[in-house]
Amino acid sequence: MIRYPNGKTQKTNKTETVAAIYANRGLSFEHEINMSNEYYLRQNRAVIYKKATPIKVVKMIQSKLGHCIQEAYFQAPSTTDYNGLYRGCYIDFEAKETKNKTFFPLANIHLHQINHMRAIVEHKGIGFLLVYFKMLGLVYLLDYHHVMEIVDAKKASIPLAIFQTKGQEVPQGYVAPIDYLKTVDAIYFKEKKEAIL
Amino acid sequence: MIRYPNGKTQKTNKTETVAAIYANRGLSFEHEINMSNEYYLRQNRAVIYKKATPIKVVKMIQSKLGHCIQEAYFQAPSTTDYNGLYRGCYIDFEAKETKNKTFFPLANIHLHQINHMRAIVEHKGIGFLLVYFKMLGLVYLLDYHHVMEIVDAKKASIPLAIFQTKGQEVPQGYVAPIDYLKTVDAIYFKEKKEAIL
Repeated sequence: MIRYPNGKTQKTNKTETVAAIYANRGLSFEHEINMSNEYYLRQNRAVIYKKATPIKVVKMIQSKLGHCIQEAYFQAPSTTDYNGLYRGCYIDFEAKETKNKTFFPLANIHLHQINHMRAIVEHKGIGFLLVYFKMLGLVYLLDYHHVMEIVDAKKASIPLAIFQTKGQEVPQGYVAPIDYLKTVDAIYFKEKKEAIL
Repeated sequence: MIRYPNGKTQKTNKTETVAAIYANRGLSFEHEINMSNEYYLRQNRAVIYKKATPIKVVKMIQSKLGHCIQEAYFQAPSTTDYNGLYRGCYIDFEAKETKNKTFFPLANIHLHQINHMRAIVEHKGIGFLLVYFKMLGLVYLLDYHHVMEIVDAKKASIPLAIFQTKGQEVPQGYVAPIDYLKTVDAIYFKEKKEAIL
């Protein structure tokens, strides 16, 4: 049974697994993260945005609606998907989903994104990979430090066990569908629990 | 005389003012900031990028070159131009130029950008406005706190004197044309001068 904030409830078939519920809910992982960020913003809890996808404009005209792009192509992003500010700290993360049940293939991450992650680690930002294991219905957070360990060991993928031991599961909710700031609090701010923003 | 790093020099007419040199150099302020950021990135000094302009795609087709955008419009950015990570801190800034010699009109900044600046201040990020006074050939940095003071006082513009007293002039150079991190060091890290990144 899912209890909505308005007091209404919705019965779910008990045999349905969490995975099945989430697999069917029809919202993309990215969209759910964006919804979470909007919630955090409304609550004045953090200022985190998805970066716009850079495009290469080939042809542009002036139309009634303003500058109209008539030919353009998406460019591979040179950095990660999201960044922002939380509790006075720079936050940077990349969000990915996979259908694999036991590992996350690193081929999903571009070399320049790896370089960006390494730079964030060096410059002492908070950076992590969020992976949604679709078939398991589970989301994990893994710090860039650990991602770099795997990359430097020339592995082709990150085993689920690494996410489970070195990372942490991200709670999923209603108002913040991917409530990753709870996990960020637990990992990065555990010694500052009493700290007020 | 401009001395380039390769040892070559270029004679300039002594009657030319700094303003005239910069007015004629043909590079936009934005382009010069991007060059500075690329330099900082190459030097592994900071990880700061211009945010891509968000677009609204109306029509897209599949072409030989990949997804081709056939109709799209630029959307007003909901945040500021630049953000990133420097010395472990979140950095956020908006860059503007003006032809006015004695003030910067606030009409140049959208309301949602003002709201974003306020959020950066509240969440303890480092945030500032960089203004290039074109006719003076001078660039100033002014912390968002001071921008908010002017906004909250319902003023329509920020006088040059405020930039000179509450802000600081940004040095201009060759490898980093708008060397704003020097100013950031002077303003935000003066007590941490000995700190290693």
